[in-house]
Amino acid sequence: MFNNICIIGCGLIGSSILRAIKSKNITNKITICDKSRDVLSYLKKENLAQEITDNPKEAVKDSDLIIISTPLSSYKEILLIIKDDLKNDAILTDTGSVKKEINKIIENLNLKNISWIASHPIAGTEESGPESGYAELFNNRWCIISASSDVKKEHIDKIKNFWEKLGSKVKQMKVDEHDHILSLTSHLPHAVAYNLVKTAVEDNTKYKNEIIKYSAGGLRDFTRIAASDPIMWRDIFIDNSKDVLDILNKFSKNIEDFKKALSEKNGDKLLKIFLSTKNIRKEIIKAGQEVEAPDFGRKKN
Amino acid sequence: MFNNICIIGCGLIGSSILRAIKSKNITNKITICDKSRDVLSYLKKENLAQEITDNPKEAVKDSDLIIISTPLSSYKEILLIIKDDLKNDAILTDTGSVKKEINKIIENLNLKNISWIASHPIAGTEESGPESGYAELFNNRWCIISASSDVKKEHIDKIKNFWEKLGSKVKQMKVDEHDHILSLTSHLPHAVAYNLVKTAVEDNTKYKNEIIKYSAGGLRDFTRIAASDPIMWRDIFIDNSKDVLDILNKFSKNIEDFKKALSEKNGDKLLKIFLSTKNIRKEIIKAGQEVEAPDFGRKKN
Repeated sequence: MFNNICIIGCGLIGSSILRAIKSKNITNKITICDKSRDVLSYLKKENLAQEITDNPKEAVKDSDLIIISTPLSSYKEILLIIKDDLKNDAILTDTGSVKKEINKIIENLNLKNISWIASHPIAGTEESGPESGYAELFNNRWCIISASSDVKKEHIDKIKNFWEKLGSKVKQMKVDEHDHILSLTSHLPHAVAYNLVKTAVEDNTKYKNEIIKYSAGGLRDFTRIAASDPIMWRDIFIDNSKDVLDILNKFSKNIEDFKKALSEKNGDKLLKIFLSTKNIRKEIIKAGQEVEAPDFGRKKN
Repeated sequence: MFNNICIIGCGLIGSSILRAIKSKNITNKITICDKSRDVLSYLKKENLAQEITDNPKEAVKDSDLIIISTPLSSYKEILLIIKDDLKNDAILTDTGSVKKEINKIIENLNLKNISWIASHPIAGTEESGPESGYAELFNNRWCIISASSDVKKEHIDKIKNFWEKLGSKVKQMKVDEHDHILSLTSHLPHAVAYNLVKTAVEDNTKYKNEIIKYSAGGLRDFTRIAASDPIMWRDIFIDNSKDVLDILNKFSKNIEDFKKALSEKNGDKLLKIFLSTKNIRKEIIKAGQEVEAPDFGRKKN
């Protein structure tokens, strides 16, 4: 399928791709590039790739597929380093959660004979680093790809095929549409979770131990998301600030309506809100994007 | 420990108590009371109690422990029905999530020779109904109890002992303190989750399928809580409206600060927010109130 795949950035996602590629025998050679010494020595110790380097220029030289899997804010620097060393007819992709800004950067670079096809595997945990990756991370998850109309169909098919081999279902989408949908399904929930956990914890030093003790009543669910990688999320919010602001404004309006219903002790209004959200979970389970276990595996603990 | 326990209301919590009592041999006799025909016939079919009735007056007659496990809004009606039939020296408890309003109702009833000791087991799933209960629900979970200073110490010890036998750790607390802490750990997260899911779904009929498909990026975590029982939550919010409004106002302020940082693309400010919430999850896991599995048991699905 590919002769030589290069992954730049080997955290949770990069290392999961690496493990999946190895377990599915997708390429003859894998080159891994990361700037962290700790990551490089972990990769060597675990014998996870044929070539391991901290030099992006070296890493991309003979690769026919290059996957950038670093925080969004480092793409520009990496692209400027590698742009003159990319192999003719290579495919360049990534795993970032926002597409608009990156797309502009790549368009401005005006790369010749390179197919830029953005990828976003909708998969992850709240863990980070190469130790937390695993080959099955992409199983049954969606991967959204985006490419401009002048990209070779053959290359788009290759990328589609690549993610399918990793276990994913693939959907092609326009960049703007991707960023809008993700602002609803991922960026809004993260913004809210971070602020919710912050609110519950701040100014409550008196009750800090109690908040931790009694978090099973709801708060703990949100701490998972609020433990996500801060740098990755800073970059996502900055790159998608307009879409996120739009939806946060709608959310604020709903919170104000809710507060009004609460101050009026308007039970009917509250009930209407709660009933409106009851069924969406069933649809998510039906769509295979959630497990049915009512307690996320906590039952037996 | 007790000779005759009566449970009024047999949903997720009531039926879990019932199953736990049976499996731990805590009483000689259990009487179950529920107003739903479906619940009663389920209980009979599963042979889960010695006596099954829809008449609260009958149910409480010889019971030395009465547990009310219905939505908060039905307590008053039930208490008015049973108040003259309670056995002398019986203990009356409940499983409700807010205590202030209920306490007032009970104080006004001026029950003679009855020990009212409020209980709140911090346990549950998003499921409801007697089929979803299980005996291990209270294992390692906290149960908060509250009683006024004139309640017999011997009875408080009995209730403490009862919840401990069911697997819980017990903490005694004042009613106001309970309601404040729960507004942070449970009521705020529920208010936010309901409004978040509502916001993501409403006005997005065009993208409804996409929102479901790509919910693994964060939204699905919130749909669990937003699928909780609407009537139960209407009652909780109305009974604890003041505390919830206080904390929702703080939350709104944080959301406004976040929007400001976003519109200014202030990366340092965003990073500071995200770093402030990163460690609380570890403390919750350390306190045994969460499992370490990074994906809530989804990994192998």
